Amino acid sequence: MIPREKHDRMANAIRFLSMDAVENAKSGHPGLPMGAADIATVLFTRFMKFDPKVPDWPDRDRFVLSAGHGSMLLYSLLYLLGYEDINMEEIKNFRQLGSNTAGHPEYGHAAGIETTTGPLGQGLANAVGMAIAERKLNDEFGDDLVDHHTYVLAGDGCLMEGISHEAISLAGHLKLNKLIVFWDDNGISIDGPVNLTDSTDQIARFEAARWNTISIDGHDTDAIADAIESARNSDKPTMIACKTVIGFGAPTKAGTAKAHGSPLGDKEIAETRKALGWSEAPFEIPSDIVDMWRLAGLRSTKERKAWQERLAETASEARTVFERRMSGGLPGGFESAIDAYKKKLAREQPAMATRKSSEAALGVINTAIPETIGGSADLTGSNNTKTEDMGVITPEDFSGRYLHYGVREHGMAAAMNGISLHGGLIPYGGGFLIFSDYCRPSIRLAALMGIRVIHVLTHDSIGLGEDGPTHQPVEHMASLRAIPNLLTFRPADATEVLECWQLALESEHRPSALALTRQDLPSIRPEYEEENMCAFGAYDLAPASDADITIFASGSEVEIALDVRTKLEAAGHVARVVSVPSFELFEEQSEEYKEAIIGDSPIKVAIEAGIRQGWDRFIGNDGLFVGMHGFGASAPYKDLYSHFGITAQDAFETILSTLESLAGQED
Amino acid sequence: MIPREKHDRMANAIRFLSMDAVENAKSGHPGLPMGAADIATVLFTRFMKFDPKVPDWPDRDRFVLSAGHGSMLLYSLLYLLGYEDINMEEIKNFRQLGSNTAGHPEYGHAAGIETTTGPLGQGLANAVGMAIAERKLNDEFGDDLVDHHTYVLAGDGCLMEGISHEAISLAGHLKLNKLIVFWDDNGISIDGPVNLTDSTDQIARFEAARWNTISIDGHDTDAIADAIESARNSDKPTMIACKTVIGFGAPTKAGTAKAHGSPLGDKEIAETRKALGWSEAPFEIPSDIVDMWRLAGLRSTKERKAWQERLAETASEARTVFERRMSGGLPGGFESAIDAYKKKLAREQPAMATRKSSEAALGVINTAIPETIGGSADLTGSNNTKTEDMGVITPEDFSGRYLHYGVREHGMAAAMNGISLHGGLIPYGGGFLIFSDYCRPSIRLAALMGIRVIHVLTHDSIGLGEDGPTHQPVEHMASLRAIPNLLTFRPADATEVLECWQLALESEHRPSALALTRQDLPSIRPEYEEENMCAFGAYDLAPASDADITIFASGSEVEIALDVRTKLEAAGHVARVVSVPSFELFEEQSEEYKEAIIGDSPIKVAIEAGIRQGWDRFIGNDGLFVGMHGFGASAPYKDLYSHFGITAQDAFETILSTLESLAGQED
Repeated sequence: MIPREKHDRMANAIRFLSMDAVENAKSGHPGLPMGAADIATVLFTRFMKFDPKVPDWPDRDRFVLSAGHGSMLLYSLLYLLGYEDINMEEIKNFRQLGSNTAGHPEYGHAAGIETTTGPLGQGLANAVGMAIAERKLNDEFGDDLVDHHTYVLAGDGCLMEGISHEAISLAGHLKLNKLIVFWDDNGISIDGPVNLTDSTDQIARFEAARWNTISIDGHDTDAIADAIESARNSDKPTMIACKTVIGFGAPTKAGTAKAHGSPLGDKEIAETRKALGWSEAPFEIPSDIVDMWRLAGLRSTKERKAWQERLAETASEARTVFERRMSGGLPGGFESAIDAYKKKLAREQPAMATRKSSEAALGVINTAIPETIGGSADLTGSNNTKTEDMGVITPEDFSGRYLHYGVREHGMAAAMNGISLHGGLIPYGGGFLIFSDYCRPSIRLAALMGIRVIHVLTHDSIGLGEDGPTHQPVEHMASLRAIPNLLTFRPADATEVLECWQLALESEHRPSALALTRQDLPSIRPEYEEENMCAFGAYDLAPASDADITIFASGSEVEIALDVRTKLEAAGHVARVVSVPSFELFEEQSEEYKEAIIGDSPIKVAIEAGIRQGWDRFIGNDGLFVGMHGFGASAPYKDLYSHFGITAQDAFETILSTLESLAGQED
Repeated sequence: MIPREKHDRMANAIRFLSMDAVENAKSGHPGLPMGAADIATVLFTRFMKFDPKVPDWPDRDRFVLSAGHGSMLLYSLLYLLGYEDINMEEIKNFRQLGSNTAGHPEYGHAAGIETTTGPLGQGLANAVGMAIAERKLNDEFGDDLVDHHTYVLAGDGCLMEGISHEAISLAGHLKLNKLIVFWDDNGISIDGPVNLTDSTDQIARFEAARWNTISIDGHDTDAIADAIESARNSDKPTMIACKTVIGFGAPTKAGTAKAHGSPLGDKEIAETRKALGWSEAPFEIPSDIVDMWRLAGLRSTKERKAWQERLAETASEARTVFERRMSGGLPGGFESAIDAYKKKLAREQPAMATRKSSEAALGVINTAIPETIGGSADLTGSNNTKTEDMGVITPEDFSGRYLHYGVREHGMAAAMNGISLHGGLIPYGGGFLIFSDYCRPSIRLAALMGIRVIHVLTHDSIGLGEDGPTHQPVEHMASLRAIPNLLTFRPADATEVLECWQLALESEHRPSALALTRQDLPSIRPEYEEENMCAFGAYDLAPASDADITIFASGSEVEIALDVRTKLEAAGHVARVVSVPSFELFEEQSEEYKEAIIGDSPIKVAIEAGIRQGWDRFIGNDGLFVGMHGFGASAPYKDLYSHFGITAQDAFETILSTLESLAGQED
């Protein structure tokens, strides 16, 4: 037990580091770190299981600062506890170019930052994924190797965001009792008091979602400790509502929106120093306080060593699997399994919807890779994400490998981020492509963090038919392709689907989105090729030298492109067809390759049942585009392809008339 | 009172129309209409205030089918009640090309469809906006003209989506007591029983959000009526939890996921006919039942006439304003107010952030247009959306014109859709551009519906600085430009801001998104021009004939483009600068105009602090792009512009080296 006076000085170290760093940066959020310092101090000095010297210890407790704007809370903690990546220079360089201490915590910038937060509610929902991963791995590897808590500090904003509803209802349903959320109930948001905009009884709300709840004074250290103790004994996830004072200690700004999002100012900081009895200069922490914190940083060393011993004593097979999975590497048999199935596809040339090809590919993948964890946002039968023998994860039994996420696209995507961040599992989840809009903020964060999360997005165009424009993605390939570091795939047949899945799985540091059809498609790859052709992003599917016409297409429209080519040949024209499963991978090829693929045909055509945006890269701004120019409509899909002019005949006629006008110009 | 036996036959008419239409279309969702038929029958025959002959009667009750997949419920009702747009042919053409009866209800396809639904949770959140609009207009025009209810039928999926949390917490906070939500508690979602994925106590949840709640058997007509009666007397919004049987009446599929989303099949339908004692052929409704329904359709005729009389008796000034506002037209003085302010700007040439220019423009707009209703998702001081004297709407007082929406981007956007759909008000709301991702599904639906909703999206690039990549939009202009029928604007100075605001307000049938800077910008329009130059989408800001270089830029990068031009001129090169505030409006210009703007400079450059996607339209795929190629970083914004090479000097050097290599080629 740390005496209260010591505790206060330790918590004040967080407060002053935070307010001084914000002041120095002339920007940032001092209020939250000052208000939540007591909670963080109790948690990290008495409960958290972690080791700054081995920060990637797989069985460490996770701490997620969902209210990411309070980043200085986390940076202060990491510095004080002795994490190498956050030294005093970094604290002084808060929010400066190249520092590890970005405006909001960024995963990968420093060990101890478990996830990137800032966009509100995301961290809370990531933590649900981490807690799912913990239960799942605990089921597989037992208490000896996996048995830890996930703690979250969430603010009022996190709880106002819709994603919080999806996260807490999923966590409550799954009885994730190792998830403990502190609600920093400071009653203040940017616009002013929270009661300006919200009257929710959060305790009742969490209880309605089947959580355990505890209400405390967030500055009462005993109450904080008792609450954590009690939460750890609950059979449900726990929300600890902590009444706190934002900007605690600042004489005039504490408890007001003024402490939230801007530097307190020299005068207020000086007054706070007086009020809290802190005489040190900015960025100076009394050495006894640093020592206390560093001691706290050592508190789990023994436990970590014991864990390492247990791991060493684990049967070698299980240990090898555990270590491989935590390192992110794929199992040895993966490539050969893929290759064998690829040969089978080449022999059988199946015609089916790519969502079904994906299910078939997953049959191979889920057998070869035990760490995949699948799911869908209530569209299992449509997304074809559940392969046989996966087993369903239930609140009582985590031995399954499939999660019914419910109608929670955003919660699912954020939970998948958390599962991936936890390590040991590769999450994939299904939804309609249209609903990628519902979870876009989480997809973006996966891309920013560079983590392996795979989105299976079916019903990828007007090809979904009767459900109509509310469900027909038109702009979604373009808008996903716009997200940096996200791999998008739109495969054209079963072989391309398999190749794209392989690429997604092998991309350890990027999320992927696979766009798949509802409708049947023929096989377009007649021969077995050892090489993963989709890895080139775009490749010559039907080559021709001196082609008059080059047709670029993706997914379901590759079939149309091949038909157009046949028609053109019959009319005496040489055409080539390039399949374009992935814009991003294409951009990563050599300049020579890209030039060769784009080529110099006088006529360049792109066919995709989506908007043109992005395709000018291939066809130039004077190329022909056969696709959508606005929203879709409700009708059987073949009627829609005709109606919107996305057929081989339409494309053929457009090309012919362009050929004629080109010939006219030459005359 | 309708006797139970009559009620049952009326409700069965909905059931059989729904199952027969789905069967005929070979696709659709019969389960919900069958399960909710009793609720709908009681509501429409005993409570709803509406008139199929005057469907746009402003004071009608609104009915929103939030569970839009159950569209046949709505189409059946509209047909049976006598709405002209939905005749039996339309019912038979359910989900066929060109019919009014799309897979999901689409606003504008038929009178009586109050909003487009299907993406779950949206309708519920739209209804919150409608209920806000009702209270606001009631405050302005009194009970005589505006005093109606908004009813919603929401499914389990609606309540699982995150947006439902934002919607119900906002409605509960604002005490929208004229909002009545039926929860179709059928316990079934696509993947199976709801308890597979959710354990939420919805009653407790709504009560936590400060709603009145009532639990009933959704097939007990008296209970339904009593609940509605009681809800209408509540001082809070009411959620009526209705236990229903999905696919009610179908002998083997009722109560199961099999009734949810696919045709029941001939056999099951035949059995249902037997079970419910319905001997009519498909699409045949006994004439006495049709008559009963048509009679129900007439029940508010008297009330509608009385309302029209009250309107006629209203003082002419108020009446004129009311009628103008409900028609969507702008007030007479608007244009001249804009013009006068534009002259002032031309004289004063202010240098300020475009978010501040927007606030100043809103000062003029909100004075000229009394029907604007502003707000922000907890970023009022950052979005600059609140002008003086707007007054804040509170639960007790709707006389204000500003809504603190809370940290609820999605709920805000969907509520704005509802406000716009209600009529009489023009909603605008503020957020950071990055958070357009959080509300993208609602922005898309506004575009699909073609309604006037204005998003003020500030902090529109790395120019926001220290908050870092989690808050820096990079791909967001591209992804918003991808949405069909959405007007995007990225104005470069105070005059362009004013012009863009004018265009957004005058676009009665399109939503708009204004991207605005955090950082200060100079004036770039030296002279007063009567014409709205932004209406061209792109225009010659610094023309030059025979330019060697054309520089296209938007927003904050126009300043850089002008600097580059100065540098190039000093180096002896002729350059022109095109400002591109709106891609969409540019595309709508004549081919001649577009060709002239794009021009034929040997070198074309685009500068935007975002990704390249979309700019190839202007510069071709061989043009130079100065902008972002990935995520941003956390640092003061000037450091970021330098770091990412988006400066006049960088652009100048790139252009010079290209000029040299072109000259080299010519040698």
